[in-house]
Amino acid sequence: MALGEFERIDRFFVPLARGAEGAFGLTDDAALLPDAPQGSAWVVTVDALVSGVHFLPDDAPDLIARKALRVNLSDLAAMGAVPYGYTLALALPRDLPDPEGWLSRFAEGLRHDQDEFGVHLLGGDSVSTPGPVTLSVTAFGSVARGREIRRSGARVGDDLWVSGTVGDSALGLKVLTSVIDPDESGDPQLIDRYRLPQPRIRLGPGLVGLATAALDVSDGLVQDSGHLAHRSGAAVRIEAGAVPLSPAAHRRVDSQPALLHDALTGGDDYELLFTAPLSARKGVVEAAAAVDVMVTRIGSVEAGQGVRVVGPDGQVLSGLKRGGWSHF
Amino acid sequence: MALGEFERIDRFFVPLARGAEGAFGLTDDAALLPDAPQGSAWVVTVDALVSGVHFLPDDAPDLIARKALRVNLSDLAAMGAVPYGYTLALALPRDLPDPEGWLSRFAEGLRHDQDEFGVHLLGGDSVSTPGPVTLSVTAFGSVARGREIRRSGARVGDDLWVSGTVGDSALGLKVLTSVIDPDESGDPQLIDRYRLPQPRIRLGPGLVGLATAALDVSDGLVQDSGHLAHRSGAAVRIEAGAVPLSPAAHRRVDSQPALLHDALTGGDDYELLFTAPLSARKGVVEAAAAVDVMVTRIGSVEAGQGVRVVGPDGQVLSGLKRGGWSHF
Repeated sequence: MALGEFERIDRFFVPLARGAEGAFGLTDDAALLPDAPQGSAWVVTVDALVSGVHFLPDDAPDLIARKALRVNLSDLAAMGAVPYGYTLALALPRDLPDPEGWLSRFAEGLRHDQDEFGVHLLGGDSVSTPGPVTLSVTAFGSVARGREIRRSGARVGDDLWVSGTVGDSALGLKVLTSVIDPDESGDPQLIDRYRLPQPRIRLGPGLVGLATAALDVSDGLVQDSGHLAHRSGAAVRIEAGAVPLSPAAHRRVDSQPALLHDALTGGDDYELLFTAPLSARKGVVEAAAAVDVMVTRIGSVEAGQGVRVVGPDGQVLSGLKRGGWSHF
Repeated sequence: MALGEFERIDRFFVPLARGAEGAFGLTDDAALLPDAPQGSAWVVTVDALVSGVHFLPDDAPDLIARKALRVNLSDLAAMGAVPYGYTLALALPRDLPDPEGWLSRFAEGLRHDQDEFGVHLLGGDSVSTPGPVTLSVTAFGSVARGREIRRSGARVGDDLWVSGTVGDSALGLKVLTSVIDPDESGDPQLIDRYRLPQPRIRLGPGLVGLATAALDVSDGLVQDSGHLAHRSGAAVRIEAGAVPLSPAAHRRVDSQPALLHDALTGGDDYELLFTAPLSARKGVVEAAAAVDVMVTRIGSVEAGQGVRVVGPDGQVLSGLKRGGWSHF
């Protein structure tokens, strides 16, 4: 027999709210946020995900849960905030087979990432829908007041940096959707990157006071560089040859050079793209090493506007400017 | 030509974020909450709405926007919190005809209620969906620290109170969905109550220090009384004859007495249901008068558990305990 709404909340969600005092065990109409840490402000962000748009309909419920949480944690990291908790709105199809089984796995995914990232469920709403699985997470973090990293602070002459590697997720999605043929050797890594972003929650706060501007790469490296440039009133130059690719992505691009375009514009990377003055190079490298994250200088901030991607031969690569993530 | 995502945000949503300094004009990955007012804590609540479940598919976009905002403001009011702002996650059907026209009206609705209730948009996410219009609002308010009104504070002997009138919304929905025949004289009021809840945002904060427990009636008076009783470890007795009905609802119930059941269990009322000691009667009446909201004593808190609804003849009305709001 199917569980009622309150039994579902009790079984699957109340355990996730333990440890957040102001969540009142999800018994009330609303939750209390504690005071932000001394000298800090609360940061809030929201991201919505829809089955068939932001994840594949047959993705496992635990991975959907973790992706929804992680894309929000990535937004917090981009601003330099330390994550604290989140609220969840979940719309489940009326005709979902075995909704309790689905919710059980979904809650397991949340539990896993709550433990990994040190966050708690603060409140939520669960409804039914005649449409696809749809969820939105609103995440809370804290950052030293006035020291949040914005998109608008890049200055001409700053270095442009990116964390981790770029393009894995976009190439992984191409494998998953059979746009390119599978290749057993390196593809699982690409697919994993698509299914499960790695939010840079420790790097972000480490960049406070070093980075002049930051965002997380969700639309694609080129397009998000454009956002940063636009908000900062400057131009960005990217050295294509400097953009860090994983070994798996390298193999793909080596055998099919056109895939470089996809790597640079495909999106869903959830790496931090940030700028910092030359004087901060040592600090950036140390901050990244302290949290065991690779960072790479991939370009610079210049006078002007827009994004130029320059190849190893110094030629500007064309056809990239309008790139970006597309719904599949 | 359709607008891009960023043009849509600029045109329809950025104006709604003016006045909230930490929203940064929606340019960044996240927003900053200001410090809560001196001695206060932030309260957060989330509600999701789905077309065809929580509103009718042909409801006007401005009314959908206002309903989504208001059901959240109602949750804040139930805890005694003064509203401050909200974030929005909006999933729009890919094949929505004239999405700009829809968004324009939707934003107008938000603007109207932002002005009416003194709140601002803090951030959001707009996505496309192969399903129905789906939205979730996360709302923020503040309440004096430690003085929030919970569901669990009712004590044996307390009065049970409700604001406004009960049942209009449930009867309005029955008219809208042709379950009962339209009646020109009073039905517009019933339908309006369904389409546009009136959150008691001024009464809620006025009850801080007076009410021992509160919630907003969304599932139905009887069912929500049960929630309050359960969380407080007590029983609730409701005098059916004391439950305030609007003139329009009275006419309906007089001509078709079985509709009283629907009024008491139908839900979507968004009135405040609260308990207070006898010593607070004068205070409650004064607090309600100060914000020009009617309040009515409809019962009391007793030892035991569950809800008893007693008719004018002293007989317990049966068949109500399992009532409550059902998805249409």
